[in-house]
Amino acid sequence: MTNIAFIGLGNMGLPMAKNLLGADLTVHGFDLSDEARAGLADAGGSAFSTIAEAVADADVVISMLPSGAIVKAVYEGEDGVFKNAKAGALMIDSSTIDVTTARDVAQEAKALGFDMVDAPVSGGVGGAAAGTLAFMVGGSAAAFSKASPILEPMGAKIVHCGASGNGQAAKICNNMVLAISMIGVSEAFNLGRALGLDDQTFYDVAANASAQCWSLTSYCPVPGPVPASPANNDYQPGFATALMHKDLGLAMEAVASSGSNTPMGHLAADIYETMMDNGHGDVDFSGVIKHLAGTL
Amino acid sequence: MTNIAFIGLGNMGLPMAKNLLGADLTVHGFDLSDEARAGLADAGGSAFSTIAEAVADADVVISMLPSGAIVKAVYEGEDGVFKNAKAGALMIDSSTIDVTTARDVAQEAKALGFDMVDAPVSGGVGGAAAGTLAFMVGGSAAAFSKASPILEPMGAKIVHCGASGNGQAAKICNNMVLAISMIGVSEAFNLGRALGLDDQTFYDVAANASAQCWSLTSYCPVPGPVPASPANNDYQPGFATALMHKDLGLAMEAVASSGSNTPMGHLAADIYETMMDNGHGDVDFSGVIKHLAGTL
Repeated sequence: MTNIAFIGLGNMGLPMAKNLLGADLTVHGFDLSDEARAGLADAGGSAFSTIAEAVADADVVISMLPSGAIVKAVYEGEDGVFKNAKAGALMIDSSTIDVTTARDVAQEAKALGFDMVDAPVSGGVGGAAAGTLAFMVGGSAAAFSKASPILEPMGAKIVHCGASGNGQAAKICNNMVLAISMIGVSEAFNLGRALGLDDQTFYDVAANASAQCWSLTSYCPVPGPVPASPANNDYQPGFATALMHKDLGLAMEAVASSGSNTPMGHLAADIYETMMDNGHGDVDFSGVIKHLAGTL
Repeated sequence: MTNIAFIGLGNMGLPMAKNLLGADLTVHGFDLSDEARAGLADAGGSAFSTIAEAVADADVVISMLPSGAIVKAVYEGEDGVFKNAKAGALMIDSSTIDVTTARDVAQEAKALGFDMVDAPVSGGVGGAAAGTLAFMVGGSAAAFSKASPILEPMGAKIVHCGASGNGQAAKICNNMVLAISMIGVSEAFNLGRALGLDDQTFYDVAANASAQCWSLTSYCPVPGPVPASPANNDYQPGFATALMHKDLGLAMEAVASSGSNTPMGHLAADIYETMMDNGHGDVDFSGVIKHLAGTL
């Protein structure tokens, strides 16, 4: 019997914890919010108002938190995970945070004798509820082997990306390409329209040619060609501009700390920053097509 | 029996003309170059040193030329196609040129009673030789119907994109996305490397996630993951930087004339312009990954 402590029962964490309960695992949860704790209790878990209580009996600690600063505080704080967890407990941080903090916390875990992996996800709230998240995992092969069966009830894909921090690196590199390709596809639809090209016609050409990309064929930013894409639902997320803006911020932190050269990544970050400044954080990130056209 | 006049027997035009000969069509060709004319004659065609002679008996005139100015001169000039073609001849311009010139020449053709389509291609020299080009066709439905069976021996895909100029519009919009996604993928590999992420690992994550795109999974800019991509052959083209630079120039002309807003497209054009300025026009366009890393 594996006891799991789940730290952070928000929009992502709570449905993930429910999938662990559904796999007959014991889940002791922590969240600052009364409502979040009640949500876990209603689903059959045990909710606690201190980290110490939640992790006391845990074989595995999983966290799903909004920022690197909070991850650091939760793990390294006086009342945090490291001070209160059992010897030998496995740590899995599924938050999306900066690579540097992920590596710092994993190093501290190692120094204290804990195995730890970073395991950020893609798939959003829908994937969390359905148990079909993709986990990008950074850490030792041994830690990855231990973490995999725990992640299984929550995920459809679990990929080992290398050493600590590499899960975060893979996620921000992926999402940087996603932002760039979504903006590129949006610019092309806007230009095509200005030249008299029908949306569906451009889609039919591009989807079968070298412009093919997930942003076009799975998440098309114009209504019509891909019925499930948020463009058909007035750009309700989906994947909100605020989340893309956060991920691009993490990417640009990594660019700065590593001295890499990403002019398109910078431009994408600037464009989503402007959408945030204009108050459009809650619009799906494919709404950038309207932002670029001046119609958002 | 259909008589075809083929104007422009270069790297693309000659193999295209050969595929027409292979389909038992009569081809009368014109090119300024002795060598090009000899190439057509060797393949069983008849080569002429004036446009007037080449088009005299033609039911269909096909052109494959390097620029809009040359297309205009070839069709509208004193010794050009319009002055010398038979009444009712069909005109097919497969050159990649600016939308405005394509529409001007088609309008002039119409005024003179000729059907004309713009039909730029993708697929490169390899596709021209194999007869597997993709034709993006702009013009009336009637002209498209007449042109399709003529294009068939040269192409694997023939798409009607709408009115005159829309073939050019579809091609430049497609290639603008291609340039943007190639640069985006290249930045992500470079950033991943700087963060300690293995190329193949990032490929495996991204190819199955929202960063998937043709630039990644069919034309990967790092050696290894996609064996046929030019990255495995020291960035020999493939699709040369000079050609991508040309297409982005045409896209930026269309942006300017239509008042569209394409910040990523502009940045892509600037980046390939710099590669040209640095003398790398003959490097495959996926070599932008080395340009960005400062190792080209």
